[in-house]
Order: sequence, then structure tokens, then C-alpha cells
Amino acid sequence: MHTDLVAALDIGGTKIAGALVDGDGALLVRAQRPTPARDGAEAVMGAVGDVLAELRASSLWARAGAMGIGSAGPVDASAGTVSPVNVPGWRGFPLVDRVTEATGGLPVVLIGDGVAMTAAEHWLGAARGYDNALCLVVSTGVGGGLVLGGKLHPGPTGNAGHIGHICVDLDGDLCPCGARGCVERIASGPNIARRALDGGWLPGPDGDSTAASVAASARAGDLVAIASYERAAQALAAGIAATATLAEIDIAVIGGGVAGAGEVLFAPLRRFLRDYATLSFVQQLRVAPAVMGTDAGLVGAAAAAWTSGVWGTGAGAGAGAKGVPAGALR
Amino acid sequence: MHTDLVAALDIGGTKIAGALVDGDGALLVRAQRPTPARDGAEAVMGAVGDVLAELRASSLWARAGAMGIGSAGPVDASAGTVSPVNVPGWRGFPLVDRVTEATGGLPVVLIGDGVAMTAAEHWLGAARGYDNALCLVVSTGVGGGLVLGGKLHPGPTGNAGHIGHICVDLDGDLCPCGARGCVERIASGPNIARRALDGGWLPGPDGDSTAASVAASARAGDLVAIASYERAAQALAAGIAATATLAEIDIAVIGGGVAGAGEVLFAPLRRFLRDYATLSFVQQLRVAPAVMGTDAGLVGAAAAAWTSGVWGTGAGAGAGAKGVPAGALR
Repeated sequence: MHTDLVAALDIGGTKIAGALVDGDGALLVRAQRPTPARDGAEAVMGAVGDVLAELRASSLWARAGAMGIGSAGPVDASAGTVSPVNVPGWRGFPLVDRVTEATGGLPVVLIGDGVAMTAAEHWLGAARGYDNALCLVVSTGVGGGLVLGGKLHPGPTGNAGHIGHICVDLDGDLCPCGARGCVERIASGPNIARRALDGGWLPGPDGDSTAASVAASARAGDLVAIASYERAAQALAAGIAATATLAEIDIAVIGGGVAGAGEVLFAPLRRFLRDYATLSFVQQLRVAPAVMGTDAGLVGAAAAAWTSGVWGTGAGAGAGAKGVPAGALR
Repeated sequence: MHTDLVAALDIGGTKIAGALVDGDGALLVRAQRPTPARDGAEAVMGAVGDVLAELRASSLWARAGAMGIGSAGPVDASAGTVSPVNVPGWRGFPLVDRVTEATGGLPVVLIGDGVAMTAAEHWLGAARGYDNALCLVVSTGVGGGLVLGGKLHPGPTGNAGHIGHICVDLDGDLCPCGARGCVERIASGPNIARRALDGGWLPGPDGDSTAASVAASARAGDLVAIASYERAAQALAAGIAATATLAEIDIAVIGGGVAGAGEVLFAPLRRFLRDYATLSFVQQLRVAPAVMGTDAGLVGAAAAAWTSGVWGTGAGAGAGAKGVPAGALR
């Protein structure tokens, strides 16, 4: 059988999505289930199994040569386990073994969801053509991933690029992770909203007190709302500049709901980057919005499977193993 | 001619050192000149030329197959230029071209001095055997370098790992680099001494107000001196934890004069690392003192030459090009 596709899983606290993906990043078959996040380990695995069963029922399944999984973190790629913060039933859950079993032995690659989003943006999105990139998801949390030297850099455990929990404020507020002054503690959507409310910002008549509502107020000129986004932008700028200074990246791509605030976030972010990215080799750093949208997790998991080296090593690998689609390997 | 050696240069604001180095890291021939740091570009290059001439006068020179340069930064490896902060006459100075010329066409690799120290510690020192490491020099400034996936990661411009200028205190003191709250602004030797003096610490009867003197007072129980080292340790811990969280490193190796304070620095550093390195994949992070001493720059420049791929590509490369000493390639 000619294996010219990969299977992909995107596992989050809300939904579990799956797809069969071709060498151009097209999602040919999709399946999805809600994540029974409050139930036990086997209930969650049951939902994964349902998604996989739906994919396996496709006539295209036989063409899949590998499986990529992007999962909410933390993950441990070296152990093949996941412990997603928002899925309490899974702590050190042996997801790679279970998925390998459920797929009849496909080779499996596991990465964190921030790393998966990064793989997608690098393959087909805003980081395409950049050999050194940081991609961020700024949402309920703040995650990310790195491309170094032209390749995805997941790190040994699949979590590299986790910019949300680097400290940019030594004496700052305690973060649920246990540290202080983390980027996420300042720049996540809930923290943008909390800071605005603490400053006296009033939600709209519909009672919407999300970061999106704060952004709307900022666009209307509300100074407290503007200040809350500016503080988030400052923390992100310091974190991005730190990453560039440490790892030499050329572009930071920002996605997630908070990036939807547009210039309310990006204008102060660019300004603060000039303050914090000072050394000669980081002054040219660019910032761009993500473009891959909600499929980024699946596309990125597929990209990881295409490029990780496991592709075509499985039992199903045939002649196609020698012909990884050119588009998948930049 | 059998080329089984490399030539190495270590260029700093005080001295310019050179050596011929074998595949075990032994410095077989050495040469050194003071850096005429306040003179013009050609005077500084003249000193480099003198060092190279002394090496070339050795009968071993003909066995050198490549040249590695570690230079005070910033450097730009992609352009082949250096602009050392403490050598004002060199701004965008085309060091690679000039050294290539002066050596009769040896292939040249340029890296920053923090990266060179890292290469040395990874090859033969405290980071040996670790595939993912951060090495720091904490001295008048704070520099560093990264090993990722078993290989030196200099980045495109040769500056990656420059932990001294990542921000760990958003609203902190202005740093000479233009940013605020940089690790160096808090943890360098001069800043440790300044903070102690500001807090009322009195130098010894000999008037020694260096960080080493503050360390001596800290060992004697002086609370202000202890507090100044603790603040430095806190900033270093936040920066090291950030690096681990971003790049997944297993060990941080710390050298430079400030590391000579020993447990005055390392004890609070380990304590603060528990506070800031919180995610599951960074909790096992180790810290160790550097062991390579003052030859680290030369040994690291040699390591970069051995492993960069330029070794054996030059005009002088003969049969030896196929036989890079095993010790040089881990």
C-alpha cells in the first residue's frame, strides 16, 4: 500500500480532533469529539478511540504512514505520556502507547500543542520561510514553540518554547505554576480582563468581561482597557525579546484569542520590543499575527509526523516511504 | 600534509590569545598579546597578527586544518564581523576575512566568547555528556551559550545563549544595553558590588570593593553582602529557568569570576531555581560550576572549529580530513 498521508490528533481540554492529512497540509478526513475532561482517564481515552475509529473507517486510512499528536501540556515526549492541566484524569497518561495500540502500530510522534501550532505556522503559515521562529498562542494560557535552524525544535520532552512560564517580573504576582511574574500571569486573556476590572473598567451592558470585551473598550479609547493591554504587550515583548536573545529567532508569530485584539495588542507590542530587544542581533526581529486558525493543531501534528523521521517507518510503509511529499519537507 | 590540529583565537578586551590545539583539547603551542583596546582598528588587528605570526612560526602550524575564533561580542558570524563592546575601534570589523588572509586561507569559524566557553565545557568540562546545556560566564558582564540536541547552538550570528541581556524584571533598572531589568544588570560582579555598597556594606581595610570582597563579607555573615548575592542568584535563577523552559536544557554550568563566590552564590541559586523552574520538564535541572578555567575560550574556539564542518575543507586539508579525532566529535 502506498502511504502518502499522515494521521493527526489535536487533544485539548475542550475537544479532541483528528484528521488524515496529505503532503500539502489538506485535511482530507476529519473527526471530532468533546473532551470529557472531568471524567476519568479511560473516558477521555474512549473519546480519543472514537475519533480514531472514525478515521480508521475511512477508505483513506490505509494510506496513513504515521501519526502525529499535538496535546495540551505538559507532555513528555521522551516517556510518551501527557498530563494536560485541564484534563485532571490524565496524569502521566501513556498516550503514545495507547494510540499506537489503537492504530494497529502506526509510528507515533507526540508534541505539545504550542509546538504543534508552531509546526503549522512554519509549514504553511506566517513563519513559512523563516529558519528561526517563535510562535505563541495567547489565549486562556500562553504557550509556544520554536523553529531553530530551519527545523521544529520540540526539545527532548516536546515542550520547548513554553514562553508562558518564563519569568519577566522577578517580584511579580504568584502564578498558579508556582513561580512569580510569568508571561502568562500578565498577558493571558483572563489576566488582561482581571487587571482591567481591578483598574475600574466596567464590562459592557451584556456583562461580557472577557479580554475581547476589554479590547473593544480599548478601541473605543478606554484608558484602563488600553493600559491592561499595554501591560500584556510589555510582558510579551520582554518574553519574546528574551527568546530572541537566547535562541536567535527572526520572527515571532502570535495567535490565540488575545491576538484577535489586533493593533490594541500589536502596536504596543512592537513599541515595547524596541525597548527590550536591544542587542544588535535581535534588533531586526519581526512580529506577525498567526494565520493558521483553529486547524493549526491538526496541521502542526501532521507536520511533526511528516518531518520527525518516523514517517514511513511503520508496518504500513511501502514505496511511498521513499517519496515524502516535497511540500512537507522544507 | 596530515592536518590533525586546529588553530584557535580567544579575543577579549584585555588579551588576545592563540593556540594550536589537538583532538583531545591539548594546547600544544600558545601565543598571547595584550589587547590595545583603546587604539584603532589596525592596532588591534596588529596584535592579532602578532599572535598568528607566532603560531605560524611553529613547526606544528602546517598540521592546522581550520581556525576557530571566540570573540568578545557582539559578533556577527553570518557577516564575519565583530564589534566587541570593550574594543571601541572594532565596529563591524571584518575579522573573519582578515584572519583568513593572515593564515593563508584556513577555513575560519567565528563564535561569541560565551558560546566558546560553552563549547569548551561541553567538550571537556562540566557539561560533558549533556545533550542540552546552558553555560554562563558571570563576570564583569554576563554571557552564555547553548548546547541543544547534543550540538553547540551558536545561532546564525554566533550569539545565541546571551542570557545577560534577557529581562527578568520588567520595571527594573535601566541597563546600558537600553533595556530594563536584564540579568546582567542585577547579577554581574560590578552590580553585586554596587548593590552592596548602596546597602551600606563597607569594603575591607584594603579598600577592595569588588564582588569577591563582597563574597568574603558574605561568608563572614554580613547580611547586606549576603542579600546582594541572593538578589544576583534570584536573577540568575529566573534567567536560567526561563532558558530551560524555552529550550529544554538539563544543566546550567556557571563560570566567571562571580562563580568563584562558591556557595555564597550557588546555595541561593539552587533555592531560587526551585521557585522559578516549576514546570514538570524543567524540575530536574542541575546547576554546576564551570571547570575549564581561563583556557575555556581557546579550547571552545578549537571545539567549534573541529565540529563546525569547516574542518578539513581548507587548502591544507589532506588525508587527515577524513580522520577527525574521535575525542573532538561527541
